[in-house]
Amino acid sequence: MRNEGLGSWPARRARMTPAKVALRHDGRSWTYGELLERVDRLAGALRSLGVRHGDRVAYLGPNHPAFVETFFAAGAAGAVFVPLNTRLTAPELSYIVADAGVAVLVCGPGQEEAGAALPVARRVAVAGEYEELLAAAGPAPADEPVGLDEPCLIMYTSGTTGRPKGATLSHGNLVWNTFNLLVDVELTHDEVTLISAPLFHIAALAQTLVPTVLKGGTAVLVPSFDVDQTFDLVERERITLMFGVPAMFAFLAQSPRWEGADLSSLRNLLCGGAPVPEPLIRTYQERGLTFLQGYGMTETSPGALFLAAEQSVRKAGTAGVPCFFSDVRLVRADGEQAAPGEPGEVVVRGPNVMTGYWGRPEDTAAVVSPEGWFHSGDIAVADEDGYVRIVDRVKDMIISGGENIYPAEVESVLYGHPAVAECAVIGVPDDRWGEVGKALVVLRPGAVAAPGDLLAHLSGRLASYKIPKHVELLPVLPRNGAGKVLKARLRALYGSAGGLAREAPE
Amino acid sequence: MRNEGLGSWPARRARMTPAKVALRHDGRSWTYGELLERVDRLAGALRSLGVRHGDRVAYLGPNHPAFVETFFAAGAAGAVFVPLNTRLTAPELSYIVADAGVAVLVCGPGQEEAGAALPVARRVAVAGEYEELLAAAGPAPADEPVGLDEPCLIMYTSGTTGRPKGATLSHGNLVWNTFNLLVDVELTHDEVTLISAPLFHIAALAQTLVPTVLKGGTAVLVPSFDVDQTFDLVERERITLMFGVPAMFAFLAQSPRWEGADLSSLRNLLCGGAPVPEPLIRTYQERGLTFLQGYGMTETSPGALFLAAEQSVRKAGTAGVPCFFSDVRLVRADGEQAAPGEPGEVVVRGPNVMTGYWGRPEDTAAVVSPEGWFHSGDIAVADEDGYVRIVDRVKDMIISGGENIYPAEVESVLYGHPAVAECAVIGVPDDRWGEVGKALVVLRPGAVAAPGDLLAHLSGRLASYKIPKHVELLPVLPRNGAGKVLKARLRALYGSAGGLAREAPE
Repeated sequence: MRNEGLGSWPARRARMTPAKVALRHDGRSWTYGELLERVDRLAGALRSLGVRHGDRVAYLGPNHPAFVETFFAAGAAGAVFVPLNTRLTAPELSYIVADAGVAVLVCGPGQEEAGAALPVARRVAVAGEYEELLAAAGPAPADEPVGLDEPCLIMYTSGTTGRPKGATLSHGNLVWNTFNLLVDVELTHDEVTLISAPLFHIAALAQTLVPTVLKGGTAVLVPSFDVDQTFDLVERERITLMFGVPAMFAFLAQSPRWEGADLSSLRNLLCGGAPVPEPLIRTYQERGLTFLQGYGMTETSPGALFLAAEQSVRKAGTAGVPCFFSDVRLVRADGEQAAPGEPGEVVVRGPNVMTGYWGRPEDTAAVVSPEGWFHSGDIAVADEDGYVRIVDRVKDMIISGGENIYPAEVESVLYGHPAVAECAVIGVPDDRWGEVGKALVVLRPGAVAAPGDLLAHLSGRLASYKIPKHVELLPVLPRNGAGKVLKARLRALYGSAGGLAREAPE
Repeated sequence: MRNEGLGSWPARRARMTPAKVALRHDGRSWTYGELLERVDRLAGALRSLGVRHGDRVAYLGPNHPAFVETFFAAGAAGAVFVPLNTRLTAPELSYIVADAGVAVLVCGPGQEEAGAALPVARRVAVAGEYEELLAAAGPAPADEPVGLDEPCLIMYTSGTTGRPKGATLSHGNLVWNTFNLLVDVELTHDEVTLISAPLFHIAALAQTLVPTVLKGGTAVLVPSFDVDQTFDLVERERITLMFGVPAMFAFLAQSPRWEGADLSSLRNLLCGGAPVPEPLIRTYQERGLTFLQGYGMTETSPGALFLAAEQSVRKAGTAGVPCFFSDVRLVRADGEQAAPGEPGEVVVRGPNVMTGYWGRPEDTAAVVSPEGWFHSGDIAVADEDGYVRIVDRVKDMIISGGENIYPAEVESVLYGHPAVAECAVIGVPDDRWGEVGKALVVLRPGAVAAPGDLLAHLSGRLASYKIPKHVELLPVLPRNGAGKVLKARLRALYGSAGGLAREAPE
């Protein structure tokens, strides 16, 4: 095959194990042979819609076989895949779709209306003409020449600037991340992987779907996480592998079904997307389960650090050591490497570091050094054995139910309300979501606005998960001599989440 | 690390599992932390001996920790590793050492005398100053910048031209071969790998040592294969993985210890280096063992085809399907792809295909097409499912006890005897070695020479395994209209080996 990228994987798998079940969803199954035929047909259909090498093809929708088909078919056709977060608002999605220059948008089930509002040249609805297009396309394989250095997908991530940026991951980025994972986690050909975390986030896509296909296992797709359904599926499908954010695993452990559930099929549980509380780790380990964590981000495809099973008890609570083919350093403010016990910024280098932000060389240069080091902005401390503990996440980022909330983005919308003079958004602990946003607002002299008015202003302008759960009016915000808001002081007053120290200087 | 090559692997492993045992040999163990320190010291010692980036460092000797240390230390210093076959004669070794331009030769135990005869700038004997050099070097890590595309090793292989050529494998070649293997074989962090096949051949090095280090398992090194020792080690060390040529596995199955041996620790047996007789496969499978084969060669690092465990019974006797990241086609003489059931030459493309023959661009161009297809010279047939059966090996190559014998090389030495007018060397079946060489010789008019005279002429000029076991004098050799010796007719008369059809046209 001239296609070295992930678009060739269904074909590579099908020549090995055509009759094995690749996907299960809603009571149906698709073998690798069937997946290949559908991917080939979809790639042909994309071409017939005018998609050319390097064009962008987006998917908007929850986990569904059409997501997987679009992902691989885009790659087979030499196009770049853009997964869209269904939790975003129409303005947010419109911005992203325009920024990426999406040629064709595939709208998953239930997303027809949301998709109709977006500025794309062509829409295909899974509930509409999708099957007809596949049937008409014919099964001719694409065999588009694609190199590992070419972009595979663009995944949007809001940064501290408040403007979503498209982290562009090459095929090689995702391949090397898979290899990093295969070194640390024993994945086998009979993996049965539950994918209930959204595939439009990097963790579910790169840590579960992609390695499962590589090894020839079965991916069980469900559109959203549900506690009872998870127990049902684990028992019925004999799930061996799943990824979840800490909140998902906490919900499971708090369920009345936890004690009696048959979890004997589970071989590896991957938890990430937010700091994992140590009591949660112990709850799973005491149940005899292999409960693994790491540290990463979209820009590193995502794995940078990983705590393998062998050390998962002794070093519980840390994010582990650098993944095999990657390098991680903790760098002090003066640029020197931090000594053990000393905090430093996490910087990452390796074949899994993104090629850059789509169309934004300045933003890329701001986070990736000329030597290839990606600057995460996160602060961490390593112990004498090199095991890294993240102590302060990227600047002021809030992680709520597995979603990243960038305060600067929320603040910029808040500032759009005429009554707002100053504001600061911080994360505060929340039993259900781990952390939620809290807005501290100073009104303009003479202005009148109730917290509810401000929340109403945010509604519709921001995805609901980004909207602070709490708004409090203050007479003034604490600032340092340079005028910068002292968020650490606000967090100290209103509480911090997850037991993380938040001692980074401001 | 700036070193992306295999020279960085001891460091990458040691940051994960410094206390795990990396090597066991002769009753001693070395952890990954200890291996790293010794590799760092040896890299420093090589530098102090004048080795610079890209220089060649050779190792002559049987399996021993110093082989592993030299392999990784050469890579850590940015040098190219040249493993030397201890079975070669002094003239053969001298030719190779000169061709590769070896700067430093490390002589393994017992190889001091053989090494002393070779034209190298500097020799280091493991039984001599090796440990002193390590102690003096200090443990400063090298951190030499090495890219995946740079040469990692040069492994000499005799071709049909009879002149040994150095297949140059990049770090990337070996990495991708490892990934191909990890897709097909479930290797784990607690692998205990018996390495008794010689590491100077690609199979033991690339299919067992390298993946074992990647996963953090333990490599048990023994200098040569012995039936009783193998049973002892399997039982005592709880061996999980081993590679062997068919003759090794046949010897084990024929041993009186076979029935009673505790083989319960064995998870994967890899058999290759020669066609694997189906009865041998069944003997192991009926014992409940996972007995796997593939097809490959030095020039493809080596894996090209592999028969994974899931299909190993149903498709027993085939070499399987293309490795995940590689492509294999069977090409007819007219350049078209062979249909199922139709013989074609095996051609291989992928990231595991060698960068070329060392210093021989013409020889490289003769076997690697501009599109990257390596032409093996082997003839194979695929079934309807794509499973490939090798039906005729590279031209007239003989495989004897896992060693490749190229008749052209033997014939060229035979022609050096004054009495020889014509000769042809073919492989004939042998109970012990699978195949051995047989020389058919036509003497010059009036010349007199007994078979023993001709064998005496070969002795010392060729490694003993290359010397034919049988010599027969004929009045004339069968030739076609173009004057080419009809070896197929000779094989039909004198027998063929391994149940392989040998119907390829000549």
